[in-house]
Amino acid sequence: MHTLARTPPSSPFDPATVTAVPGRDDDGRHLRLRIETRRVAEVVDLTASLESFLLLSGVRYGVLAIHTLHTTTAIVVNEQEPLLHGDLFRQLDRLAPPTLAYDHDDPTRRVVNRTEAERTNGHAHCQAMLLGSSASVPVVGGRLMLGRWQRVLFVELDGPQERQVCAALISSGRG
Amino acid sequence: MHTLARTPPSSPFDPATVTAVPGRDDDGRHLRLRIETRRVAEVVDLTASLESFLLLSGVRYGVLAIHTLHTTTAIVVNEQEPLLHGDLFRQLDRLAPPTLAYDHDDPTRRVVNRTEAERTNGHAHCQAMLLGSSASVPVVGGRLMLGRWQRVLFVELDGPQERQVCAALISSGRG
Amino acid sequence: MHTLARTPPSSPFDPATVTAVPGRDDDGRHLRLRIETRRVAEVVDLTASLESFLLLSGVRYGVLAIHTLHTTTAIVVNEQEPLLHGDLFRQLDRLAPPTLAYDHDDPTRRVVNRTEAERTNGHAHCQAMLLGSSASVPVVGGRLMLGRWQRVLFVELDGPQERQVCAALISSGRG
Repeated sequence: MHTLARTPPSSPFDPATVTAVPGRDDDGRHLRLRIETRRVAEVVDLTASLESFLLLSGVRYGVLAIHTLHTTTAIVVNEQEPLLHGDLFRQLDRLAPPTLAYDHDDPTRRVVNRTEAERTNGHAHCQAMLLGSSASVPVVGGRLMLGRWQRVLFVELDGPQERQVCAALISSGRG
Repeated sequence: MHTLARTPPSSPFDPATVTAVPGRDDDGRHLRLRIETRRVAEVVDLTASLESFLLLSGVRYGVLAIHTLHTTTAIVVNEQEPLLHGDLFRQLDRLAPPTLAYDHDDPTRRVVNRTEAERTNGHAHCQAMLLGSSASVPVVGGRLMLGRWQRVLFVELDGPQERQVCAALISSGRG
Repeated sequence: MHTLARTPPSSPFDPATVTAVPGRDDDGRHLRLRIETRRVAEVVDLTASLESFLLLSGVRYGVLAIHTLHTTTAIVVNEQEPLLHGDLFRQLDRLAPPTLAYDHDDPTRRVVNRTEAERTNGHAHCQAMLLGSSASVPVVGGRLMLGRWQRVLFVELDGPQERQVCAALISSGRG
């Protein structure tokens, strides 16, 4: 299960690893993915992992719900094009700037959900809420119904961290 | 069914009330919640109400779709931390400022969907569209599959008002 | 199938056409809609088409997942009010301005997913990710569970183009 990289996290040639976590959520219709991100902000393409799971399931028609388990990450369906991802992060940093002071990050005021290793990540929470935590993609003929440029993307906004995504497959009971 | 508060709406100690509405949508797989918000902008944690419904349903594997019935509210999955909610509202007020003039609020131009008591809420519609009206959360072992800090949150953007949320539970037919 | 308009695309009286595409995704629980948009930015109300499909399906309880097949369009649930749509587009153009230079649109740097007729649309991708690519709406008593002002809206952000939307209906297996 250990897939830690040997190259430094900042390397552009060292993308996040995606691993299916076996034995969890095990009705054969739920998938748990573990994602080790490498950068502060990073987009990880989950499409191939999700398609493999679909193939194994044997389900031909239905919906796949993809849901991140974290409050500073997001799921979006868009293009897997690295320059675009840089554009997206630049826009998000204009919308909820990391340089602003967020009350969420103020140790003199914060009383709820405090931990020892509290991260300064108010901006990442706000950015994550703008993008959304889940997507629902139709399944048709055993495949994700995606347009030509669409991929299912995990968006890290407060990395690098070890992350998890859960996908739930619902069959329409037909075909 | 009446749960009106006796303290003024501005009180920080008087959170919104959440009530399940019985006898609606009654196939045992749909839940209707009534939410009385107390402030202009407010976050209401729906997680406990949704978990109670799940328990009663007996469904162990599937997906729960949570959907607000209003155009100036949103559903997000994020942290239940009051300072963060203040941060979010401040960012949303930068993105779609309540102080701007919206054509939607211009009685000299508006011809569609006009009512007697039209609210000035163009900004709240825009903010709601940025956050999104629904979330889909996997159900695993009879519980919402939520990460450590995740809660299902209703976001009021044009309150106080009486609001409703509908949740639909789909079983994967397994387990 | 040809429904091309005879009036110029800029006419305010010439809305986008929505056509169900027969013989696709044909388990009776999936709908494919073809949408011909007429303007650069445009909102198209899909509610009537989705309701017709629901009626034909005979499904009374469940969830309808509506998913766009494009990376520069979005699905939102909000009000069908033209002035509000103008407000939304103005706010989106502040959040991810079409006038900015996006790396995604830089032919000297772009190496991934390049096509002959590459559009300058970095801003439209970013706007689409802020709005979201899908919505999940509960189905109750054979109808979409929508609030008084809610409609299911397709949002064009890089038109005019021919577009497609896929909807997947999942029955709760009850009622």
